[in-house]
Amino acid sequence: MAETVAGLGEFALIRDLLQPVQLPAAAGVAVGIGDDGAVLTVPRTQQLVATVDGLVEGIHFAAGADPDRLARKALRVNLSDLAAMGARPCWYLLSLSLPPETPLTWVERFAAGLREEGERFGVTVVGGNTTGSLGGIFVNVTLMGLVSQDRAMLRSGAQAGDRIVVSGTIGDAALGLAVRQGRLAVAADRQFLEERLDLPEPRVALGLALADSAVAHGVIDLSDGLVADLGHLCAASGVGAVIETGRIPFSPVARDLLEKDGALLPLLLTGGEDYELLFTVSPGAVDLVAALAREVGVPLTDIGEITTGETIQVMQGGQPLALDRGGWRHF
Amino acid sequence: MAETVAGLGEFALIRDLLQPVQLPAAAGVAVGIGDDGAVLTVPRTQQLVATVDGLVEGIHFAAGADPDRLARKALRVNLSDLAAMGARPCWYLLSLSLPPETPLTWVERFAAGLREEGERFGVTVVGGNTTGSLGGIFVNVTLMGLVSQDRAMLRSGAQAGDRIVVSGTIGDAALGLAVRQGRLAVAADRQFLEERLDLPEPRVALGLALADSAVAHGVIDLSDGLVADLGHLCAASGVGAVIETGRIPFSPVARDLLEKDGALLPLLLTGGEDYELLFTVSPGAVDLVAALAREVGVPLTDIGEITTGETIQVMQGGQPLALDRGGWRHF
Repeated sequence: MAETVAGLGEFALIRDLLQPVQLPAAAGVAVGIGDDGAVLTVPRTQQLVATVDGLVEGIHFAAGADPDRLARKALRVNLSDLAAMGARPCWYLLSLSLPPETPLTWVERFAAGLREEGERFGVTVVGGNTTGSLGGIFVNVTLMGLVSQDRAMLRSGAQAGDRIVVSGTIGDAALGLAVRQGRLAVAADRQFLEERLDLPEPRVALGLALADSAVAHGVIDLSDGLVADLGHLCAASGVGAVIETGRIPFSPVARDLLEKDGALLPLLLTGGEDYELLFTVSPGAVDLVAALAREVGVPLTDIGEITTGETIQVMQGGQPLALDRGGWRHF
Repeated sequence: MAETVAGLGEFALIRDLLQPVQLPAAAGVAVGIGDDGAVLTVPRTQQLVATVDGLVEGIHFAAGADPDRLARKALRVNLSDLAAMGARPCWYLLSLSLPPETPLTWVERFAAGLREEGERFGVTVVGGNTTGSLGGIFVNVTLMGLVSQDRAMLRSGAQAGDRIVVSGTIGDAALGLAVRQGRLAVAADRQFLEERLDLPEPRVALGLALADSAVAHGVIDLSDGLVADLGHLCAASGVGAVIETGRIPFSPVARDLLEKDGALLPLLLTGGEDYELLFTVSPGAVDLVAALAREVGVPLTDIGEITTGETIQVMQGGQPLALDRGGWRHF
């Protein structure tokens, strides 16, 4: 048996990789993998939501990264986008470019990761494309989901006076990347931080609950860093914002590290890859938000206010905090 | 102003690249680029058809390839897949990974190619993702389209006794690749052959007409080579096929080259990237096929017959032709 993808060829690779990943009897799949395209049925009360995101060797992950984690993260970063829209994730297409020397065990582990994530989140592969690569591994996922007609949540609805709410904790993934790249030394917490980097928790249930309640005015997922993504939401809404560093939710691990070295704060606020949701609500909706947090089991924290201005102000102890960079750049 | 993508950053690149490519007032686009996902409306009599395909530097094109042609081809190979399903193409998501040293003029030419193709075929970008790359240029397109409920054409409907029909001419792209790679010397016809390689003509109108008439039993687009793709269709349908090399439509250029060197024949039949449609119809539907050819202005040629067997036989002058390879491999 061939032991690398070079020995297998594209058709066999697609078959071996994707067929076990396709969930049986997935809703809406009239034709799945194996034809020139997938045929999908969108219920007539629903709209389609589609997004694409990818992971590139040398940019988003290092050579030798665990294929199981790569597969999971490639799905999760897209699940986070659909969560921000309030959509229920359903179907995905995978595009995978692999160097010819990639071992088949890599492909098997990658497929196993996809399958388990698919089962957990109820999403099935419906198409794919595999190619060779002379420049490392490229993983691209296009994820499609459904949202009730006219109920998709957007970045553009934030209003001056709104409270700004974030889910979960901020900055752990940035710390995880710093640890992995040798820029930060930690002892016992390395595993926690790297898992936060490799296995973000997409807030799918929260997104669905927010869309159901119609409580959020503007929503975005935090992929580029809290400050940068808040900036994107504000730009789309034509507003500004002021947030308080003292209100921002940090994990106990992040809090310990911050206590030892306060200079880490900008990294936490701008480092990216949190994959939490940030949304804005009327000041009067605070109780509803608290109820939502209990319902979906995700901490939700009020970190500041939308303003009429055009700037994002990050306040620390009453003073504006200067941040060198507004987010994470791929180039 | 920044002159490479490294100086621009991802957000500006997405904005500069994709915003001019988005068609104004495209049907069904409730939310286009600029949010966490696109929101698309699928009419209730229609189903969604989705496909993904990509072009990779060093695999599908050489360093220095014309970005205008790359953009066009990245769309066209996907348009061909939708044509084979009988779907009307509507929306696409672009994933683009670029080395940091890529000049902005490259991006501008790429965007111009996308825009012109989008206008011609009536498809608009609705989302995208750009990343850096340490290993050359990667272009991925996910294309979505619409087909009337239960009218999508599949590979799996071919029946023993069906006639096998192909559109256009076969083998020009394979010759174009051989010319470009220095494996074949031609004089005046180089431009024609390279254009057939770089700018395949997706048979969108033919696909729509076939779906409308419901005349085709099995349909596939020819990306991997005539023999390999006929094999895929037969495998999906549980049938075999016999085709006659004397019936296969070749361009005048290909015919001239074949007359000089008959050993080119296997290349033409297996070389791939024709992006023509191959479909099967009842023997009694031959007149209808001729009418379709006139209607859409595309030559349609009967090249053989579907059999009850499991093999693909290529006959030349009454003798089976042995072919070394069944198609094009990416690895």
